[in-house]
Amino acid sequence: MYSAYEIIAKKRDGEELTQEEIKWFIQSLIDGKVADYQMSALLMAIYLNGFSTKETASLTDVMLYSGETLNFNVDHVVDKHSTGGIGDKTSFILAPIAAACGVRVPMIAGRGLGHTGGTVDKVEAIEGFNTSLTLKEFQNTLEKEGLVLIGQTGEIAPADKIIYGLRDVTATIESIPLITASIMSKKLAEGAQGIVMDIKVGNGAFMRNKSQAKKLARSIRNTGLRFGRNMMTVLSDMNQPLGNTVGNSLEIIESIETLKGNGPKDLTDLSLHLAGGMIHIAGLAKSHSAGIRQAKEALKSGKALEVFRDMIKRQGGNPKVVDDYSLLPQATHHHVVTAPRSGYIKKMQATEIGLHVVSLGGGRHKATDKIDFGVGLTFHKKVGDKIKEGDPLVTIHHNEDQKEDVLKISDSLIQQDIRFSPKKPSTLPSLIYETETSWCH
Amino acid sequence: MYSAYEIIAKKRDGEELTQEEIKWFIQSLIDGKVADYQMSALLMAIYLNGFSTKETASLTDVMLYSGETLNFNVDHVVDKHSTGGIGDKTSFILAPIAAACGVRVPMIAGRGLGHTGGTVDKVEAIEGFNTSLTLKEFQNTLEKEGLVLIGQTGEIAPADKIIYGLRDVTATIESIPLITASIMSKKLAEGAQGIVMDIKVGNGAFMRNKSQAKKLARSIRNTGLRFGRNMMTVLSDMNQPLGNTVGNSLEIIESIETLKGNGPKDLTDLSLHLAGGMIHIAGLAKSHSAGIRQAKEALKSGKALEVFRDMIKRQGGNPKVVDDYSLLPQATHHHVVTAPRSGYIKKMQATEIGLHVVSLGGGRHKATDKIDFGVGLTFHKKVGDKIKEGDPLVTIHHNEDQKEDVLKISDSLIQQDIRFSPKKPSTLPSLIYETETSWCH
Repeated sequence: MYSAYEIIAKKRDGEELTQEEIKWFIQSLIDGKVADYQMSALLMAIYLNGFSTKETASLTDVMLYSGETLNFNVDHVVDKHSTGGIGDKTSFILAPIAAACGVRVPMIAGRGLGHTGGTVDKVEAIEGFNTSLTLKEFQNTLEKEGLVLIGQTGEIAPADKIIYGLRDVTATIESIPLITASIMSKKLAEGAQGIVMDIKVGNGAFMRNKSQAKKLARSIRNTGLRFGRNMMTVLSDMNQPLGNTVGNSLEIIESIETLKGNGPKDLTDLSLHLAGGMIHIAGLAKSHSAGIRQAKEALKSGKALEVFRDMIKRQGGNPKVVDDYSLLPQATHHHVVTAPRSGYIKKMQATEIGLHVVSLGGGRHKATDKIDFGVGLTFHKKVGDKIKEGDPLVTIHHNEDQKEDVLKISDSLIQQDIRFSPKKPSTLPSLIYETETSWCH
Repeated sequence: MYSAYEIIAKKRDGEELTQEEIKWFIQSLIDGKVADYQMSALLMAIYLNGFSTKETASLTDVMLYSGETLNFNVDHVVDKHSTGGIGDKTSFILAPIAAACGVRVPMIAGRGLGHTGGTVDKVEAIEGFNTSLTLKEFQNTLEKEGLVLIGQTGEIAPADKIIYGLRDVTATIESIPLITASIMSKKLAEGAQGIVMDIKVGNGAFMRNKSQAKKLARSIRNTGLRFGRNMMTVLSDMNQPLGNTVGNSLEIIESIETLKGNGPKDLTDLSLHLAGGMIHIAGLAKSHSAGIRQAKEALKSGKALEVFRDMIKRQGGNPKVVDDYSLLPQATHHHVVTAPRSGYIKKMQATEIGLHVVSLGGGRHKATDKIDFGVGLTFHKKVGDKIKEGDPLVTIHHNEDQKEDVLKISDSLIQQDIRFSPKKPSTLPSLIYETETSWCH
C-alpha cells in the first residue's frame, strides 16, 4: 500500500515518483482519501523540484482516465489548442479552413475567465448556437460532418478540475509539467489523433518569456508522443491583441471577415499557419508549407466560409449572421480614443487591454459572471504603426451607463497600455517564433 | 491588503516574506480566511526554499501571540525542553535539582505519541498527580513554590496545533525554521526568562545527524535571543535509551533512584549538565561548571529529592511513592531476554525500542489511546558493554495476555535492535556533543 506522506516526502526530496505512486495519489485524491492539503503540498514540491517526462506522462494518464475518453471511428482527426491570449479568435478561422481541406476538427473549448476571453463565449454571441451537445452527439457530428464545437464538460478529465482549482489558489499554476498534464489530459481524452498547440508568449500570455514557452512546447510534444499523437507546437506572439478586435461579437465579426479574405494580416497569417499545420499532421499535406498552401486555397475559394456557415446552422445558430452582422449583439455607444501625439506605437500591454474588456462586461471576473457580447475594443493601430496626433487609435464599444468606465479605460489606454515613441521602433515582435513538429511513428 | 496567493508565490520564488505578510497569513489561517491547502503549499515552499532568522522570528511571534502568554512576577525563571528521545526522564531529575538551587522551573510538558514517551504520561503514573492546573494556578504555584509541572493546554500557542497537524500529514515536519517556530512559540508563551534546550541526536531522535542538530540549535538560540531570552542549547546522544528503563512507572522509579544518588551514569550526568545550565543562565552561577557543582551538591544533599517529594504532594500525588515503589502501577509479568552470544554490544536501534514499549501499551499510536503505566523495558546492558552468552540483556515488563507480543519483541531485540560484535567497539557515542550558551544582554 502507498502512503500520501511517503509520496510527498519522496518528491520533496527530489526523487522520481513511480507511475503507480502517481496513479494511487491522484485516484485517492479523487476518492477523497488523500486530502486537498496533501495535494497542494505535493503540487508545491512538484513546482519546486520538477517532474520528469515520465512522471508528467503518468500524471497525464491518470487525469486523462479520470473521466470519459473519446475514440473516433474516422481518420484525420486533429485539434488545435491555444494557451490563451487577447483577441485570439483563430479557432473560428482555422477550424473551417482545416475542415474544408479534409481534416476532422473536434473542438472542446473553454469559457473566458480573467483577462482572456473564451471560444465558447464568443461563439455564443451567435444566438441559438448550442455548445452543450452530449459527448455521443459530439462524436456523431464529428464523424459525419467533420467539424463540431462544444464547451468543456465535467465528463472529460474531471481530475483536472480538482487539481486546477487547487493550483489556482496555491501559486502552483506556472509549472511546466503541471500545465502539460492539465492541457494534455483533456486534449488526449477528447480523442484527437493529432494536436496543434499554439503557445502564446508575451505580456498578454501565461508564458511571459520565450525560454519558458519553449520548455512548455517540448514538454507538450513529448507527452503527446508518449500517447501516440502527432504533435505540432507553435510559439506565437502575445504582446498585443491578435487581430484588431477584443470582445465577443466583435471577434465573431472579425473572424467572418477573415474567412471572407478581409482579415487583418496577423490574424490571417497565424490562422493559415495553424490550419496548415493541422492539415500536415493529419497526413493530408506532405509538408507544413504544402498544408498552408491548401489552407490559403480553402480561404480564397470561400469554401472555408461555407463550412463555417454550415456549422452555425447545424448547431442551432442563425447562419445569416455571416452576411448580416446586425444579427449579432452590438453595443449601443462608441467612444473613439485618439492619438495624443504624433509618432509611432512602440508597445502595448495586452493583459491590461483584456482586463478593460472584462470591466466593460465582455468577460468574467468570476465563473458565475454574465457576459455582455456587444462590448469590446477595436484597435485602429497596432505596434509599429505610424500615428498622427488626433488619429483614431481605439474604439470603445460600450453601453449608455458606462461613461465613467469609458473615461477610465480611455485614460489607461493612452497613459499606460499603449506606449508611444517619436521614432520608428527598431525591432518589432515577430508573429511566429518557432514551429516544431513531432511524429509519433 | 495581502493575498494568500501572492505570499505563497513570493516564498515559492525564494523571496523573504515581511513580518506583516507572515502575521497576516497565519492570522487568516486561524480565522479560516486562508485555507489549510494554502497553508500546506506555503509550508512546502518554506521547507524547500528556507526561512531566514527574521522570518522564523516573525512566524514564532504570531504563533506565540495566537493564545495566552505568561509573564512571571519573579526572577530566575528557567525552563528546559527536549526534542524527545527514548527513556528521556531528565525533567524529573533536573527540575527538582535546579529548583533546589533557586531556579524557578515552570514546566508545561507533552504527552507521548509514536516512539517517544511524554513527561505528562510518566508523571501521571503517580496516582492523583494533577497536571491540569489552570494557567493562573500554574503561575501562582511557580511564583510561590518555584516548581510546577502541567500538561500542554490549548490556551498556549493554539496556532502551533493547527500548523503542526498540517505538517504532520504533508511531509513538512523536518524543517529547521518550522521546528524552531513550533518549539519556541510555546516555550516563549510559557514565560520562561531563560531556556535550556536539549536537542537529541541519533537513531532514536528527530534529528538523525549532528549537522542538522547544530543548525537547529543555532536557529533556536537565535530566535530565543530575538525575544530577549538567555539560551543554552545542548546536543546529546540518542542512539540508545537514556538511562536503563523505558516505560512510565519504570522511568519514575529510575528518576527517584537518580535523585537518591543511585542513578545510571548517563542519566545522572546529563541531568546534572542540564540542571547546571539552568542554574547558570538563571544568573545563579557564574559559569556552567559552577552551576553543575551546585547541582551535584543539591543531589548529594538530598535536597532535590525533597523538592520532588514536595511537588508530588502539592500537585495531589501520594509523596510516599518516593519510598515505596509498589504504590506505582507495575506489570504483572517479566520476561528476561538473554545474550545470544558472548562479545560486546555495538549498537542499538532506539526508535524500534521505543515502538516496542508502545506496542506493549506503554505509549500511543494515536492521541486517543490509553496508557498502561506498568509495562516497559529495563536494559541491563548498554552500548559498549561486555556480555557473556546467557547474560540478562533486557527485562520485558508485561501483562499476562501479552505473551505473543513478548516473543515478537524478544526476537526483534536480539535479531535487529541490539547489534553485537565479537570485539570491543573502537568508538562509542559520546553523551554530550556540544553545549552553547547565548546571553540576551
